This record gives sequence, C-alpha cells and structure tokens, in this order.
Amino acid sequence: MEIPSIYLEHAVGHFAQLPGIGRKTAMRLVLHLLRREASDVEAFATSLSDLVKNVRYCHVCHNISDEDTCAICANPKRDHTTVCVVENVQDVLAIEATQQYTGTYHVLGGIISPMDGIGPQDLEIQSLVTRVQSDADIKEVILALSPTMEGDTTSFYIYRKLSGTPVTITTLARGVAQNDLLQYTDELTLGRSILDRRPFKGN
Amino acid sequence: MEIPSIYLEHAVGHFAQLPGIGRKTAMRLVLHLLRREASDVEAFATSLSDLVKNVRYCHVCHNISDEDTCAICANPKRDHTTVCVVENVQDVLAIEATQQYTGTYHVLGGIISPMDGIGPQDLEIQSLVTRVQSDADIKEVILALSPTMEGDTTSFYIYRKLSGTPVTITTLARGVAQNDLLQYTDELTLGRSILDRRPFKGN
Repeated sequence: MEIPSIYLEHAVGHFAQLPGIGRKTAMRLVLHLLRREASDVEAFATSLSDLVKNVRYCHVCHNISDEDTCAICANPKRDHTTVCVVENVQDVLAIEATQQYTGTYHVLGGIISPMDGIGPQDLEIQSLVTRVQSDADIKEVILALSPTMEGDTTSFYIYRKLSGTPVTITTLARGVAQNDLLQYTDELTLGRSILDRRPFKGN
Repeated sequence: MEIPSIYLEHAVGHFAQLPGIGRKTAMRLVLHLLRREASDVEAFATSLSDLVKNVRYCHVCHNISDEDTCAICANPKRDHTTVCVVENVQDVLAIEATQQYTGTYHVLGGIISPMDGIGPQDLEIQSLVTRVQSDADIKEVILALSPTMEGDTTSFYIYRKLSGTPVTITTLARGVAQNDLLQYTDELTLGRSILDRRPFKGN
C-alpha cells in the first residue's frame, strides 16, 4: 500500500515494528493519533524520548527503576532474607499484584533459550550468584520462572550454580489452577497435583 | 499494577490510550522498546513529533498529503471527471490497492453517526458539494461508503445534497463476496444479489 505522506509512512513504519502490530493496525493507530490534539501526540513522543534517556535498572535486583536502587530494594520493611528470581519486569508486577510476597526480587532479563540464542551469559545469573554469595542475609531463593521447558532449564541452571551456597532454594507450587475444571486440566498438571497432594485444611 | 518507574508509567499510559491497546499490551510494547537501541526509540519519538507538525490535508480532496495538493489530485494522468467519495484515508489506500480506479477522491473524514454525535457539518460534505458545483469537469460521483446503516445514511444525505447538480451519482455494487460460500452469506446480501443479478459473461 502506497502511503500518501512520508511523515505518515515513517510513523506507521515505527509502529509496525512493535511486536504483534502489523501495517494495517499501525496505520489505524497513527490515523487515530492524527485526530488527537497535537499536544497529546507531542507528549507521547516526549514520553518515549524520556523513557530511553532516563530509565535505569536497580543495581541490586535489575528491576526497572528511576533511581540507582529500586523502591523495593530500598524499602527496609521488605523481607531482605528472601529473593524471588523472575524472568522480567512484568513478572515482578504480577507477583506484587498478588500482595502475597514481601521479599525482594532478582530480574534475569529473560530465560535461557538456545532456539533464540539466549544463553546464561546474556542474563543476570552471575550477578544473582554474586549477590547471594556476598549478602549473608539472604536465606532463601525462590525460582519463580514460567513452568515451561525454557523456564525449567533456567531454574535448573541457577539451582546448580547456587548449590554451593547455604541458601534454601524453592520454587512455585504447581497444580490445578483456581477455578479450572478438572476435566480440562492437562494430564501433566493433573498428575503432578495428585503426586504433590497436601493435607486438606478446609480452605 | 504499580509501575516502578515514572518514565515507564508515562510511556505505558500513552500507549494504553491508543484504540485496542490495554495496559498489559502497552507495558509489553514499552518493555520491547526498552530492549531496542536508544536511537531507534528516539527515531520513533521524532516520527510522531514530525507527523503532527508536518502532515497536511489536500485542499481539494482532504486526503492526507505532504503538499497543499495531494499526489492524486495533482496527477494529470488521473481521470478528473470522476470523484470517489470515501470515509477515510484507509479507504483511499484500499481502493488504490485494487488498481481498478483511476479517478480522484473526496475524503469525508468520517460518516454521519448520531450515536457518536457526528453530523454532516463535522464532515467534508459541504466542500464536496462546492467542489462539484464549481468544477464543471466532474461528471460522476461514486459513493463508496461502507454498506452499513451509517454509510447508507451518509450516502443518502450526499445524494440529496447533490441532486440539483448535473453529475451522475453511482455507488459500489453489492453482492456475494469473492470466495464466500453461499450457505454462509447473510440473507440480506444474498437476497440483494439475486435481485441485482446480471448477465453471465463467463468471467
């Protein structure tokens, strides 16, 4: 499709490079922006520019932060004896949203995926090992990676790397999901939830 | 969800205002941008800023353009006796992509939709009437609006407005779509395609 304006073409091209956005959707988004106030679109542009200029990563847990140390690592009320290892920032947000976790995090920035050419050296795994070795307060490391082959591989790699340290290594419970119907639960999950069954406490 | 950086928060907020993009998708897009080269993201920001500063609309047909007159209106090889009335820029691109139309366009910038508070005065209808009245070369106006209630209402409104002028007013053929199975074609379309049946020419 031949676009009638070079400025339109450029903006559409940039939107179409985003994951999950094709050229037709990109065009729809850009034409939507054209109908908005110019100041709104300028603010959008400024937010992108500010983002790459100003965003930093916490030097302790590698979560996105505006400061050198993120709000979670800097908070004395959090439990600094527990480190929850997650793949990315979204997973931190997902766990924070549960309001069930008061410890700190360690954001790997991805998982080991040979298919995508991502090895351990591309992730914040060495910094995790160093952090655990140098901070005697840390008692437990929770491996909270997605229950996929890549996630399990990464978990096992980290488990071996930390095996020389005195920390307890745990992982998320696996089993049937809340409100899922048993008949539609996959065999692996259901089988594992039987093997890992636990005392019924009426809740 | 509490976002750990104000810059991240701002960028996510702007993406989430786009149609069809929720906060989770916005977060995914922004985190994708953070993994890209800073210069790429700066170029993205510049493209948005340039867009609102520089994009113009053709003074004849109101299509998006970089000049005062768009490439189609300025092209002497196009058939300037025919004007195709469309709702928006995407429709121009869709018709151009067919390579079946050599005339000019008139972009209304929307369709009459009382539910959304859009009346004839919000669209480029008066400018179409003036254009047809003042340009004696125009012999035919094709009403190429979507076959919806709003599209039909708008077509009828324009038809009445142009009824005093000597131009021929036509509209797109309606019927069964190429490669659609008859059994799944809706009754209205199928019924209309029987009433509007045409001589079989073997193509």
